[in-house]
Amino acid sequence: MKLAKLFFLVALCIASLSLPAFAADPLPSWNDTASKKAIVAFVERVTKESSLDFVPPAERIATFDQDGTLWSEQPMYFQFFFALDRVKALAPQHPEWKEKEPFASLLKGDVKGALAGGERALLEIVMATHAGMTTEEFEKTVQEWIATARHPKTKRPYTKMVYQPMLELLTFLRSNGFKTYIVSGGGIEFMRPWTEQVYGIPPEQVIGSSIKTKFEVRDGKPVLVRLPEINFIDDKEGKPIAINQHIGRRPIAAFGNSDGDLQMLQWATAGSGARFALLVHHTDAEREWTYDRTSSIGRLDKALDEAQANGWTVVDMKSDWKTIFPFEKR
Amino acid sequence: MKLAKLFFLVALCIASLSLPAFAADPLPSWNDTASKKAIVAFVERVTKESSLDFVPPAERIATFDQDGTLWSEQPMYFQFFFALDRVKALAPQHPEWKEKEPFASLLKGDVKGALAGGERALLEIVMATHAGMTTEEFEKTVQEWIATARHPKTKRPYTKMVYQPMLELLTFLRSNGFKTYIVSGGGIEFMRPWTEQVYGIPPEQVIGSSIKTKFEVRDGKPVLVRLPEINFIDDKEGKPIAINQHIGRRPIAAFGNSDGDLQMLQWATAGSGARFALLVHHTDAEREWTYDRTSSIGRLDKALDEAQANGWTVVDMKSDWKTIFPFEKR
Repeated sequence: MKLAKLFFLVALCIASLSLPAFAADPLPSWNDTASKKAIVAFVERVTKESSLDFVPPAERIATFDQDGTLWSEQPMYFQFFFALDRVKALAPQHPEWKEKEPFASLLKGDVKGALAGGERALLEIVMATHAGMTTEEFEKTVQEWIATARHPKTKRPYTKMVYQPMLELLTFLRSNGFKTYIVSGGGIEFMRPWTEQVYGIPPEQVIGSSIKTKFEVRDGKPVLVRLPEINFIDDKEGKPIAINQHIGRRPIAAFGNSDGDLQMLQWATAGSGARFALLVHHTDAEREWTYDRTSSIGRLDKALDEAQANGWTVVDMKSDWKTIFPFEKR
Repeated sequence: MKLAKLFFLVALCIASLSLPAFAADPLPSWNDTASKKAIVAFVERVTKESSLDFVPPAERIATFDQDGTLWSEQPMYFQFFFALDRVKALAPQHPEWKEKEPFASLLKGDVKGALAGGERALLEIVMATHAGMTTEEFEKTVQEWIATARHPKTKRPYTKMVYQPMLELLTFLRSNGFKTYIVSGGGIEFMRPWTEQVYGIPPEQVIGSSIKTKFEVRDGKPVLVRLPEINFIDDKEGKPIAINQHIGRRPIAAFGNSDGDLQMLQWATAGSGARFALLVHHTDAEREWTYDRTSSIGRLDKALDEAQANGWTVVDMKSDWKTIFPFEKR
């Protein structure tokens, strides 16, 4: 072998060796405050082989809530905007909706009036827009909507209203051998068509609420039909139950923003060894929204008290995050 | 850099490059028959980048039934032996069982008599032995049992009654970028404590039947309590439903041995592009068991017809497998 070729091979090999994960700042959109320091310290603690708290890669499970933790959730959960758009799109096939609540109000643009019917009205809207088609048809509908819909305030695609610091955190954890999961109260099939592209999280690592499906053979072709019946609500106590069902391991780190995430954080931190829990506190009215203890969407009350009592990390969006949305980046 | 050091580095780098997956025979326990050839041809077809049927690694999902496909299932599903041992172990705490069916018959060693009560009797046995404890307690019980219990005929641990050719197949697929899943009618929490060690399949890639659980905080510590209520039966139509729920992608290859796997194989093969379906046909009375169309355990009837009609691969254990169990290996 000629020496030049040898040098080339060495250079190639060296380039292919993975660089140490701490070489550059992996969290550039985070200010150098306590939250960032706590994240980095935890990751060092569980990944250094000499550490007493070393965790083998297979057990490095991190679970993330979505609404309000990875992307915004104001003025309403984004999936609700999807449902509203579907009601409008489907209205021509349902002339009876003109006279029937909650659809009549919705079609007049009166969301508040439609939701006056409470949980039952909401369920009717969800089932009318999320059930009755095959899983493949629903996936296509979601893909089309997510590619074209715009947020009413920012006029941006919803997938651009994700938090840049959390995108960096997901990448940072994965580059340190973590497996990152979404554990959301949102619909599992509503998220899966786009989470891989947006968050780098593949469908099999997305956990959410679901409706029942039915296996059928139609014209010799098997399909799964989405039924108008709740299968599982992945919120509050549901989150640890779903984590156990889907993953079968307890996460060593959990990330949320509301009381709906409290039980997931309790579950993750109750395991032995090093544990990490983080809450995103929405404190930036200028760049995003400000809400916590009294909000009907993403209420953060009990979980905030428990975070303070247990020393969980609470992100103050305003002071901890240099950038909030990717489109702000300079 | 000294030349010797340079050579050392090159040697190290070359050694660390992954060897081509076809270098040695990856399936040494398979005879060179049509089944083996079909497997190898399929894997080449979906992994060669120049192939029209190339499948990106993220979509290389392979699902395996367990009972009768990865390990034996005669004279009864192995999980049923676990349940029987649990009935015996728990009997002192249940003096009423002496008079109460199906337990009275079981405790006298009369399994047939116990199961005369049909599905209801079976359900009572399952719930009495699988519910009422926390998920952590149940996991520990399974771990202890699987480490010590012996099969009544072979006197081997149940985890040694796995099929050597299938272990090789799992490794072969993974070394070609596949993600391997178990999709079993057996209990999800009964399998997860040991599938990683035995099959190299981590808990998050194990799908199975389940009972409901409840989140509770006991003495300040969150636990999941196993409830005596069926959550999901992962058999027949349940398999594609569970695959969709857990994985959210359609497998490109599916492996089973009975009519309980038919819908999973239909679902996997109905996708576009190259697809692979395989049934293990139990044809070796000497080394294992012989059964198919009329067996009450692992009945293979409709699926065998459909395999023949669709050109699915049917493994003839007797002629296709050089070795069946790892303990036979020379």
